[in-house]
Amino acid sequence: MGQANQVLEPFFNPQKVAIVGATGNPMKMNYHLTENLLRLKFQGRIYLVNPNRDEILGIKTWSSLRDIPDGLDLVIISTPASISLSIMEDCVEKGIKSVVLVPGGFSEGGKKGGELHKKVAKLAKENGIRVLGPNTLSPINTSNNLIISFHRVERLRKGGIAFVFQSGFYEYKLNWIFSHLGVSKILDLGNKMDINEVDALEYLAEDPETKMIAMHIESIRGEGKYFIQLLKGTSKRKPIVILKSGRSPAGAKAAASHTGAIAKENDSLFDSLLKQAGAIRAQDLEEFFDFVKSFDFLIPPSDNRIAVVNISGGEGVIATDACQQNGFQMAKLGKKTIKKLREIFPPWEIPVNPFDGGVCMEFHLSDMGKFFHTLAAIPDDENVDCLIAQIPRTMFERTEHLQSSRLSATMEEFVSTFADMGKRKPLALWRSSVGGIEERLVERLELNGIPVYPSSNKAAKALAALYKYQVYRNQC
Amino acid sequence: MGQANQVLEPFFNPQKVAIVGATGNPMKMNYHLTENLLRLKFQGRIYLVNPNRDEILGIKTWSSLRDIPDGLDLVIISTPASISLSIMEDCVEKGIKSVVLVPGGFSEGGKKGGELHKKVAKLAKENGIRVLGPNTLSPINTSNNLIISFHRVERLRKGGIAFVFQSGFYEYKLNWIFSHLGVSKILDLGNKMDINEVDALEYLAEDPETKMIAMHIESIRGEGKYFIQLLKGTSKRKPIVILKSGRSPAGAKAAASHTGAIAKENDSLFDSLLKQAGAIRAQDLEEFFDFVKSFDFLIPPSDNRIAVVNISGGEGVIATDACQQNGFQMAKLGKKTIKKLREIFPPWEIPVNPFDGGVCMEFHLSDMGKFFHTLAAIPDDENVDCLIAQIPRTMFERTEHLQSSRLSATMEEFVSTFADMGKRKPLALWRSSVGGIEERLVERLELNGIPVYPSSNKAAKALAALYKYQVYRNQC
Repeated sequence: MGQANQVLEPFFNPQKVAIVGATGNPMKMNYHLTENLLRLKFQGRIYLVNPNRDEILGIKTWSSLRDIPDGLDLVIISTPASISLSIMEDCVEKGIKSVVLVPGGFSEGGKKGGELHKKVAKLAKENGIRVLGPNTLSPINTSNNLIISFHRVERLRKGGIAFVFQSGFYEYKLNWIFSHLGVSKILDLGNKMDINEVDALEYLAEDPETKMIAMHIESIRGEGKYFIQLLKGTSKRKPIVILKSGRSPAGAKAAASHTGAIAKENDSLFDSLLKQAGAIRAQDLEEFFDFVKSFDFLIPPSDNRIAVVNISGGEGVIATDACQQNGFQMAKLGKKTIKKLREIFPPWEIPVNPFDGGVCMEFHLSDMGKFFHTLAAIPDDENVDCLIAQIPRTMFERTEHLQSSRLSATMEEFVSTFADMGKRKPLALWRSSVGGIEERLVERLELNGIPVYPSSNKAAKALAALYKYQVYRNQC
Repeated sequence: MGQANQVLEPFFNPQKVAIVGATGNPMKMNYHLTENLLRLKFQGRIYLVNPNRDEILGIKTWSSLRDIPDGLDLVIISTPASISLSIMEDCVEKGIKSVVLVPGGFSEGGKKGGELHKKVAKLAKENGIRVLGPNTLSPINTSNNLIISFHRVERLRKGGIAFVFQSGFYEYKLNWIFSHLGVSKILDLGNKMDINEVDALEYLAEDPETKMIAMHIESIRGEGKYFIQLLKGTSKRKPIVILKSGRSPAGAKAAASHTGAIAKENDSLFDSLLKQAGAIRAQDLEEFFDFVKSFDFLIPPSDNRIAVVNISGGEGVIATDACQQNGFQMAKLGKKTIKKLREIFPPWEIPVNPFDGGVCMEFHLSDMGKFFHTLAAIPDDENVDCLIAQIPRTMFERTEHLQSSRLSATMEEFVSTFADMGKRKPLALWRSSVGGIEERLVERLELNGIPVYPSSNKAAKALAALYKYQVYRNQC
């Protein structure tokens, strides 16, 4: 540990990149491999290879890797698997040391694919070529705008999250990711012919641009012991969220036919090893992104005393259940805070945690600023470590109805007050519904660092992940 | 059992309804109480009471209930709690037998509220007045367009689901409910001064328009034993989905301050009683609506052999885990089906469950109809009891790119093929992302009876709820 993994350096920071299988035809899958690099302004030099074209998207095109006069740091092979062996031979010829193998059809492609896999792996090993994939769509690096993707990616957003996947499924979420999260790097390990989760973790642990690591794995290659040790060393400095699929016997079998790997670990053993290593395990894909959002947006709670603000009493009860089930205890607020809150509560209602903001709303439609600012007394209370709150959708709907000109200003007041609270104590919101004003609110909130979840249960779970990590860190 | 509960009849099917606290001022909370009834054309007669107005929304207004010359079947009281006692006295005077008490501030409103609660309850009991609430927003009946709500409800949609809530939180979801689900009746029990979950269940069990019952409860009044027995008798004929909140000690305390009731039941005991009674328990609010959707849209699976169609291999593994964890086994398809599927799979790929539709897509962009129709062989296989599939979002995105004129036709072909499959075997879809084309697809799919869930895990859970109920029914 401490020694950076150098293998991945040319994959993330190449100066000269060649794409074999480049196309200027938007009807072809490979189109965006080149188009994204150009539009998003990759900061290195791009070489395109296609024997049937002289020029693609304004760039001179070579008929073979061998014809390129310059040395290359990275070659992206995106041809049918069947001809990849001959391209690999070109790579050997040119002395290339780093290759991304995009196509599927290797170890997961029946007997023939398995044989091809062996041949390519042997050739690479004998010639010191490091291979990412096959069956991968990556890497992405937001520092130099390197992006390998089949999809049109609207923009990149730089930040501290590194993602490691073992599947291209994240592709569907790429535009969502870049409009919600700040990313340092994305790596899809695919079938792991060579580069695997250990390389990824070693590299990202030392990467100064990576503040947290979010990892999806289907199987662990080789010695799991070293991987766990590596997790342990890294999680002391950077939070690690892990989604492990292929956990059920049928899932493990499916993983084998997906990437050709055998997930032989016992899932509950793996679970306890992750816990010991301080990694936070997400139970499913939704939770994976929920947790990433909370680690990215929020500071950790220093203890487990939570306050709840709801707009409907019924949801307050549900939220309280969720808090307790996720290891929180309901905060008992100080007298000063309660006194302050009485200013916005109707006289007959005693402010208690969970706080029913719904009963207050009616009295503050003409001055919602006061309502929001008074609520800020809750996270300011020294007995409160964190807070979940329900988006007061109806309040905005009614304001819109009353005076639509005031709506935007009120929304911004809400967003900035809550963003401020979120800077002092971890704060997660939950939404009650979808569509309409709520969509605008959620967008504004998340752009301002306040995560929004689809239910109080998910908001509590996301804060609980932060808290668990904090407890682990404190023990280190 | 067998004997219909008559108490609720005037609440759902009143001929003459009075609203006390009616207003024509859209700035007031009570505005939509009247406005919804008028716009959505309630099929009974409406009487408005407001001492300060002669006319509201075009309707002659009375200054007191006592002035109304006709008899009334139902009175909606939506005034501050403090003056509700005198309105109740008017009700006694007029011989009214059914009252909805909308306001909060009774048993949950401190000592003063508690005393008021007792007084109103005593007066009602002595005079044979049945009370719904206080702290309620309901009833709703889609048969006669009766609707009591603070929010503008765009439309009602008639169907077989009856909802019972113990909180007004469903209000936020009302427009979502009516754009996604077919509803018979909605009842919010509020603080249950009088009418409670037993009345609701007795009535809905015998209501011919109600095909399934979805019930949120915070506490059970009186003898839980009879309620469980009632559930048991009803669930043999109609599926019952239950969300119980106030399950943790802190949640139960919150429930007490929400509706003034003590949730004294032991949660795990309650859980096993529900199972014995054949009711399906939802763990949280999202699951509650997920299950309702599956029971409303789908036929039950006859056994637990499931097929999975994914667009990304990684999601296929995650989905397989989810299926196994939810009690399904992966279906082994017959030779005939596999042969048929080979027509759309590339030559190097062997079609196995989970089926990776992603590898096929590239070859069928010019004829997606064939692709969809061939997939239909999966639910037609006699070894398959049900199916979950991932929405092929990228497929449509690429079609749009290629030939946007063809997009709508392709979408409709997809929707109609899958809707057809869903008629033969239960079929749930999951989405990979949000926004863009996927929103249109989800809307079209759900309008055609195919439920869409945010993850494969949720799709599998929703089918599992159906399957569990089917097993219970078969044992009866």
